[in-house]
Amino acid sequence: MSIVEAVDPRSGRVAGSYPAARVEDVDAALAAAVEAAASPAMRDDARRAAALRAAAGGLRARGGDVVAVAGGETGLPEARLRGELERTAVQLELLADHVAAGEHHDAIVDRADPDWRPLPRPDLRRRRVPIGPVAVFGASNFPLAFSTGGGDTGAALAAGCPAIVKGHPSHPGTGTLVAEVLAAAVEEAGLPAGAFAHLLAAELDVAEALVDHPATAAVAFTGSFRAGTALIARANARPTPIPVFAEMGSLNPVVVTHAALAARGDAIAEALAGAVGTFGGQLCTKPGLVFAPAGSTLAADLAAALGARREVLLNANVHRGYGAGVEALAAAEGVERLTPAAASGGDGGANGDGAAGGDAVRDAGFAVAPAVFRTRASALAATPALGEECFGPAVVVLEYEAGDDLHAALGALGGQLAAALYAEPAEHPALAPLVERLTELAGRVIFDGVPTGVSVTLAMHHGGPWPATSAPAHTSVGATAVDRFLRPVVYQDAPDALLPPALQDANPLNLLRRVDGERTREPVVR
Amino acid sequence: MSIVEAVDPRSGRVAGSYPAARVEDVDAALAAAVEAAASPAMRDDARRAAALRAAAGGLRARGGDVVAVAGGETGLPEARLRGELERTAVQLELLADHVAAGEHHDAIVDRADPDWRPLPRPDLRRRRVPIGPVAVFGASNFPLAFSTGGGDTGAALAAGCPAIVKGHPSHPGTGTLVAEVLAAAVEEAGLPAGAFAHLLAAELDVAEALVDHPATAAVAFTGSFRAGTALIARANARPTPIPVFAEMGSLNPVVVTHAALAARGDAIAEALAGAVGTFGGQLCTKPGLVFAPAGSTLAADLAAALGARREVLLNANVHRGYGAGVEALAAAEGVERLTPAAASGGDGGANGDGAAGGDAVRDAGFAVAPAVFRTRASALAATPALGEECFGPAVVVLEYEAGDDLHAALGALGGQLAAALYAEPAEHPALAPLVERLTELAGRVIFDGVPTGVSVTLAMHHGGPWPATSAPAHTSVGATAVDRFLRPVVYQDAPDALLPPALQDANPLNLLRRVDGERTREPVVR
Repeated sequence: MSIVEAVDPRSGRVAGSYPAARVEDVDAALAAAVEAAASPAMRDDARRAAALRAAAGGLRARGGDVVAVAGGETGLPEARLRGELERTAVQLELLADHVAAGEHHDAIVDRADPDWRPLPRPDLRRRRVPIGPVAVFGASNFPLAFSTGGGDTGAALAAGCPAIVKGHPSHPGTGTLVAEVLAAAVEEAGLPAGAFAHLLAAELDVAEALVDHPATAAVAFTGSFRAGTALIARANARPTPIPVFAEMGSLNPVVVTHAALAARGDAIAEALAGAVGTFGGQLCTKPGLVFAPAGSTLAADLAAALGARREVLLNANVHRGYGAGVEALAAAEGVERLTPAAASGGDGGANGDGAAGGDAVRDAGFAVAPAVFRTRASALAATPALGEECFGPAVVVLEYEAGDDLHAALGALGGQLAAALYAEPAEHPALAPLVERLTELAGRVIFDGVPTGVSVTLAMHHGGPWPATSAPAHTSVGATAVDRFLRPVVYQDAPDALLPPALQDANPLNLLRRVDGERTREPVVR
Repeated sequence: MSIVEAVDPRSGRVAGSYPAARVEDVDAALAAAVEAAASPAMRDDARRAAALRAAAGGLRARGGDVVAVAGGETGLPEARLRGELERTAVQLELLADHVAAGEHHDAIVDRADPDWRPLPRPDLRRRRVPIGPVAVFGASNFPLAFSTGGGDTGAALAAGCPAIVKGHPSHPGTGTLVAEVLAAAVEEAGLPAGAFAHLLAAELDVAEALVDHPATAAVAFTGSFRAGTALIARANARPTPIPVFAEMGSLNPVVVTHAALAARGDAIAEALAGAVGTFGGQLCTKPGLVFAPAGSTLAADLAAALGARREVLLNANVHRGYGAGVEALAAAEGVERLTPAAASGGDGGANGDGAAGGDAVRDAGFAVAPAVFRTRASALAATPALGEECFGPAVVVLEYEAGDDLHAALGALGGQLAAALYAEPAEHPALAPLVERLTELAGRVIFDGVPTGVSVTLAMHHGGPWPATSAPAHTSVGATAVDRFLRPVVYQDAPDALLPPALQDANPLNLLRRVDGERTREPVVR
């Protein structure tokens, strides 16, 4: 039997081994998922909400175990993992509340109208239905919030779609524990067992079979651009193409004005250094580019704050990728490295990953040093390395002159998850065009704060134009993450008895519906 | 200069000639569109609503000319074109109302909350922004409602996206006239001229350049599966892939029960014959498959009602495709043709289209006879020709035995725009599983009516699972067609002065917003 080995990134040593799923398991999981999707229990909003709440409670109840195992597999500190576990539970509960309130139905009733133009209108009633089983590919950097029991799994279940998780091989023990919690929650709430499955795999065959399976209706993915685009190509090549909701990373540019630096440069440098270095800079919202006025000390301040740190990266792949990214930046024309070269790379340590790069420092496990670079903002358009995400604790400070066209520099960037602006109130009236530019660029625009930290709320949008995501109209965080897994169906002149409860005259679910254009919970009178 | 020739399908003769756009015109149109998209006027909801209303008024004012030209280019009867023109105007007005009411913003405000878990929540305010210039590819079968000034163009403009229409070469004069109306409406409302462009072309190069252009943000398409999938492949192959909202046709199955036939067989046959034959059966919602009880006379009744008709098809391509489709059905094993073979095909007449098929009947222009086929419902899964849309006045009656598994037969079909069910009230309690099956299959489920006729309302959903469309979550008809061209952006801790009006504290647009989860028009108190 094939196994997946957990590696403790702090030591590079094997921390556990877990049985791997086989391609046949994909067929079994999808067969169970299809059965589950068709069951009345799965269409019961209250039951699905109960399952999500039970999962949140289960995560909290087993929090100690989960955090301990996750720490050994990711190298992330206990406090961070405790926070991430609570955030994961909150996300599941937010989705439960959203579904219990019936928001996901988006119920619309247009009553028959003999005076409608150009022809009389029939009775039309629309609500949304689940699209079917969702294949979930979690990320290594959020072993809880964006993995087995994370937002994608929660959103799929909230929508009424079975979630088939391809368990991430970077934290197999964590995934296995969380999968137990999810399976127990599904059972406790009376959902069919096929509503959730966890297929742990390190090889590509299971992932490919999952995307190819005819019953898979959508893919939710968080990870690298390379892996995301490979999944998208595969999903598009199916006889029946399916959507891939891929979040593929971002540079999350931060613009700092001269006045903001003058007023509170130390606080800004401290916040940015924290956002770049904390948790090894392994956040999809880590600021990778900072636009600062030429002549400011921000780049030097960041180098000073970060230069002496050591951060443990998640796994050999991330470690190797960071080394390569740092090398590429260091080699780029006109780019100056402000942190010591010898400490900025890393190598596989106990894993003996000799390909880690010339800057490798001998260290146990996957520890690396942060890297701070500096160049001119005008170099951005002509320097491809500056436009690539360097996943890990690296940042490039792009210095701009008073006369430089910041808009033009920003125009060289692809789509971003987030962009931030530090400015003083007196400058605000002049900054509307820059805010407009950041709006075009990103899914979230932050004022006087760093892009890291994604609050789980109704308004949150964690998404953005390509290549940050493959589906800029959608978010993977917050209550509206459920929208990805629903499609509308309209019933024309349906007898009340054959309408789904969401659309019946009496409004038995007590939904806030749009009836003839007005929002109301009142029954419909034909 | 290259030209596009209009052909009168009633005679096969050239009815006019129009200058064709060149590839350079694509660059110019997109450059103007990018400028338009960035203009404050384009962000002004009232102004865009005014442009849509002016376009509706302009269409009505020039209705006589438009209908006359369209009749000569499509062979569609005047009454149909007058109705389609009014429906197109209604669609533009519905979109105007939707935008004027601010529904498209989907404004959500989550105020800062120090008690939020696991961390204090910042102030988060989200609304939707236009995605950018939309390339619109209209259909030949709705020269007004799904073409130059149709629902896709209207929805793009409603969203704040410039619409660049690739004018359909099957009705170049109609497109040119409608484009004049649109351009005048855009000017009258004070929108930048780049908000709308009409690029008439018969060659592929203009279409390809339009999809490839870096400034094109999305494609809206109505037409054949072959053309739609070619556009999708091209859009996916761009350095920055863009969404293609393609409606690609459908079989629109209709299920008729024994009891319904017994109670009102004549009326059902008449309604179905009308839906199959009227306007040459050239509707995306034409019922192509009818499930009827074995032993019923429905197939024979349809053949009797349709056998003597002659219908003029839109153009040489449609005429050729119909001939090929009819031939494929006639050649399929176990499929019986109930209408005379010699009258079911057609040829190019004056166009000398010798490839029209062995069943060609000598006739002027693109006239053909309807074709009615009959086979067993159980044959569907094993007979590929039955699962292909035959665009034109053809229908296949699939006869089922009392013991047959209708669900299994329906399971052999791909996604559909619409599905219909004729049944008696006494049967309703037993039909819930069948309605569930039709819900999985289609975007619209009709009771006791034909699928043709798509009312333009808020609740309407004109869409469906692949291959009916490439984006099952979206509709191309009705007010929510605007959703395709918007993406959310959330502002975090933004000063009021830098927020868009839709999200400002005072709610200057008087939007119905969700504030801390509750719908309200009240100002926000920080």
